Amino acid sequence: MATNAYEDGMDKNPANYQALSPLSFIRRTRDVYPDYLSVIYGARRYTWRQSYERCVRLASALAALGVGKGDTVAVMAANTPELFEAHFGIPMCGGVLNTINTRLDADTVAYILDHGDAKVFITDTQFSVVVREALAALGNDDLVVIDIVDGQISGEGERLGNSDYEAFLQTGDPEYDWKIPDDEWQALALNYTSGTSGRPKGVVYHHRGSYLMTMGTVVAWELPNHPRYLYTVPMFHCNGWGHAWTMTAVAGTIICCRNVTATAIFDAVADHRVSHFGGAPIVLGMLINAPEGERRAFDHPVRAMTAGAPPPSAVLEKVQALGFDVMQVYGLTETYGHVSHCAWQSEWDDLPFGEQATIKARQGVRFPMTEDIKVLALATGEPVPADGESLGEICIRGNTVMKGYYKNADATSAAFENGWFHSADLAVVHPGGYMEIKDRLKDIIISGGENISSVEVESTLYKHPAVALAAVVAKPDEKWGETPCAFVELKPDESVTEQDLVAFCRDNMAHFKAPKTIVFCELPKTSTGKIQKFVLREQIRDNL
Amino acid sequence: MATNAYEDGMDKNPANYQALSPLSFIRRTRDVYPDYLSVIYGARRYTWRQSYERCVRLASALAALGVGKGDTVAVMAANTPELFEAHFGIPMCGGVLNTINTRLDADTVAYILDHGDAKVFITDTQFSVVVREALAALGNDDLVVIDIVDGQISGEGERLGNSDYEAFLQTGDPEYDWKIPDDEWQALALNYTSGTSGRPKGVVYHHRGSYLMTMGTVVAWELPNHPRYLYTVPMFHCNGWGHAWTMTAVAGTIICCRNVTATAIFDAVADHRVSHFGGAPIVLGMLINAPEGERRAFDHPVRAMTAGAPPPSAVLEKVQALGFDVMQVYGLTETYGHVSHCAWQSEWDDLPFGEQATIKARQGVRFPMTEDIKVLALATGEPVPADGESLGEICIRGNTVMKGYYKNADATSAAFENGWFHSADLAVVHPGGYMEIKDRLKDIIISGGENISSVEVESTLYKHPAVALAAVVAKPDEKWGETPCAFVELKPDESVTEQDLVAFCRDNMAHFKAPKTIVFCELPKTSTGKIQKFVLREQIRDNL
Repeated sequence: MATNAYEDGMDKNPANYQALSPLSFIRRTRDVYPDYLSVIYGARRYTWRQSYERCVRLASALAALGVGKGDTVAVMAANTPELFEAHFGIPMCGGVLNTINTRLDADTVAYILDHGDAKVFITDTQFSVVVREALAALGNDDLVVIDIVDGQISGEGERLGNSDYEAFLQTGDPEYDWKIPDDEWQALALNYTSGTSGRPKGVVYHHRGSYLMTMGTVVAWELPNHPRYLYTVPMFHCNGWGHAWTMTAVAGTIICCRNVTATAIFDAVADHRVSHFGGAPIVLGMLINAPEGERRAFDHPVRAMTAGAPPPSAVLEKVQALGFDVMQVYGLTETYGHVSHCAWQSEWDDLPFGEQATIKARQGVRFPMTEDIKVLALATGEPVPADGESLGEICIRGNTVMKGYYKNADATSAAFENGWFHSADLAVVHPGGYMEIKDRLKDIIISGGENISSVEVESTLYKHPAVALAAVVAKPDEKWGETPCAFVELKPDESVTEQDLVAFCRDNMAHFKAPKTIVFCELPKTSTGKIQKFVLREQIRDNL
Repeated sequence: MATNAYEDGMDKNPANYQALSPLSFIRRTRDVYPDYLSVIYGARRYTWRQSYERCVRLASALAALGVGKGDTVAVMAANTPELFEAHFGIPMCGGVLNTINTRLDADTVAYILDHGDAKVFITDTQFSVVVREALAALGNDDLVVIDIVDGQISGEGERLGNSDYEAFLQTGDPEYDWKIPDDEWQALALNYTSGTSGRPKGVVYHHRGSYLMTMGTVVAWELPNHPRYLYTVPMFHCNGWGHAWTMTAVAGTIICCRNVTATAIFDAVADHRVSHFGGAPIVLGMLINAPEGERRAFDHPVRAMTAGAPPPSAVLEKVQALGFDVMQVYGLTETYGHVSHCAWQSEWDDLPFGEQATIKARQGVRFPMTEDIKVLALATGEPVPADGESLGEICIRGNTVMKGYYKNADATSAAFENGWFHSADLAVVHPGGYMEIKDRLKDIIISGGENISSVEVESTLYKHPAVALAAVVAKPDEKWGETPCAFVELKPDESVTEQDLVAFCRDNMAHFKAPKTIVFCELPKTSTGKIQKFVLREQIRDNL
């Protein structure tokens, strides 16, 4: 008996081993469902046969420019068909897709183009003011710039490149013989973090990870074949949670949306029978705050994923009442998007609506493709007990964790310390194993030696009928070390005094946790709707 | 600019790389849905917490016997909880699961135990007559035998081992620290082919393949979470098409079924609200032929996969009318089960029922995890045109193609010639890209220089109202070279003469294709319901 009989003569070969890649999905979907609609954008309609051909042309045209394995192609675009096509066309020639947040300033865009080693830059003319300035700051004459010119937008911006996207596609060969990479660990995408402090870091995804992200998303979201997916999550944000690839795998129809408004969402749901979408809580907020005239009736189920900041349970409750079935998910740019979700348990079916909403605000349990998530105590590195109280850091393991940060070995090592990816998010684990985020590591307020969760204070503030948005950060204090300082945005036509709001907090939570200071103002937000606490912290520091 | 910046400092580490393994699914499902039902078998009920613990105990008990990486554990059992547990418990300690067809003769069982290097043999006492004889023939005193003793069966067989399964589990440690293999290419299962000629060959599966088989099955079958799955496909057959692992990934409830009868299926559907099952056409035949008294009413959708021999469209049509939505799938032991399926196209929705059934009998298009399937012309190795007529061999590429045949390098090389797995199934490709099997390579009849598809002749025979089963093979003929010889099993209480049946065939197909000889008899079948044409061929040869 050969001890190694299960290995001898059992090598990988082209018949039994293929590198995992999301590029495989579009080839299959084109073959099986060539005449199904792939993308709808305003009056534009594409079938999978057409989208596939456009992706192959893009790959071919880029290859003709010299783009090959490991070359970065940056794209600064809205959620239009072109950005969808970039998710396939760029990696089809071996390139790495670097989507850039369209709301960044010119200096940061220039930094990303430079640091990311972009060879080609595809940019929508809507953003030409910033892009022009960024290109001037970059001063790289070798960078090839291609303009996306969209007839559907009014006030179309300036053309900055030598070619527009449609003309560029025409230079590509629709029969171009693209290949799936030999190595599934090959880079697929480069996504810069939103940069809550300092320069953004470039998160690198590989083909294997995106393939598995897709599969796990289908399982966790119970995606049927041919969903009708409204793309409200910006594709520049973790590649739109990977859904460009996921919807391709299930041969969905992607409804593109340049400007995310309540009207646009309701119209897409009613007119295109959207079955699925994803969005930050701010998007859900738009829906519940939409005036009657912007709402449209619909009678089919619509499932939504939400992530970003934990949405207040009041928001979840209201959006559910509108007919949207919302699932809270959690993840980071470093994890290709969502890696945990609030998977529903049948025993919760009969709970009162309010309790259901409280549960639905939890970040929950790991996705099927996520190998492990543990909440590890900061002091010991051991898992915290599932008591709903003990705070620890969310740490993640799995194949949808980034390769590393581009050209930043120190940050990469730090993120992977002790063989876990460290999220810097602080959470508790409820009995039953569901995580709930309490804070970012740096958002904990230590007052008189007691930990105060800024999220808890914010949740209390949200219960006040006049409060639209709230953010709580630490304010240095001679006596207490730190005290909670709340920044509050009021609803239109509502008012409340600082004194009354503090009193409200004291009535609804432990007294020591109530904010000592309240500032009424419009809150600074990132392009994806996250409140920028670091701006508030700077404001406090500058006023000291 | 570093040319290699996407590789430098981007190594795999425990946070961002984990070997793919179906073992990951049971860990997650136990964590997330511990109190959901995992397995129902008669009066026995297990939750995922319990099933997981039993699997871990099994792994621990096996490890204590010295079973480790690459050691074979054979199991000869019905579709009971024990066989389900074997799918996890054996690989949890590094072992390789070798399920054995329960209808094999003692000599073949002994051959498999010997060739497969089994260290432990878990066997259900139902099969003790054959097993006793096989053990005697094997004469291996080192083989540890463990009996599954099932109180639910009457006429329980003889105990042959030193321990029974439940006692063996008790020796295991429920806290045993099992590990997912470091290498996803590690062997997971060993499945011997049914052996249509000569000794069966041992097909080796790896962890990566089973993980991906699971994911692809969820996508193609649109499996929701928590399906209620009736296990009618024998788990010894391609590990029951991998569904033991798939249903675990989606936290389904598996309803086990020792004896597959129409009553058992209708009862499970009505009493346990079965939502999904799989079965050979013979199982579908049972359903449509069940007398009124055995049928049960149900009002929920039931989806069934069928595979094996292409079912006559008349069968598909009738089973659909009973309330079962049937999807034809195709695969082989060498491909972990199904790799193609007749994916439905919306344009077929309005076709007449008969035409829909004709389409549904096709083997269709590749699964999402299947990288490529081509029908290659035998003469040229080039893909045949999609004309519905040109015959070629189905060739497959993907991660759910076996590692190879155990200790059979020659057969492995032959199967993987030219970088494709060769199925030996002959098919045409219809316009639109859907494959339809016409024959096994060796089942083509060449009569007067013309190819006659035995499947086509059989399809014609099935149209006759008296015909229950039909199999056509080549009969040597001095004048024509070969002529079609039909073996026909009639329905109870039906009769037809040879002459009339031949005339019926001539009326319904090209004259030269009509069988020259018809033999009325009961047809020999494999344990999975396939008609054993090689037995018929031997019969013809012996009578020459």
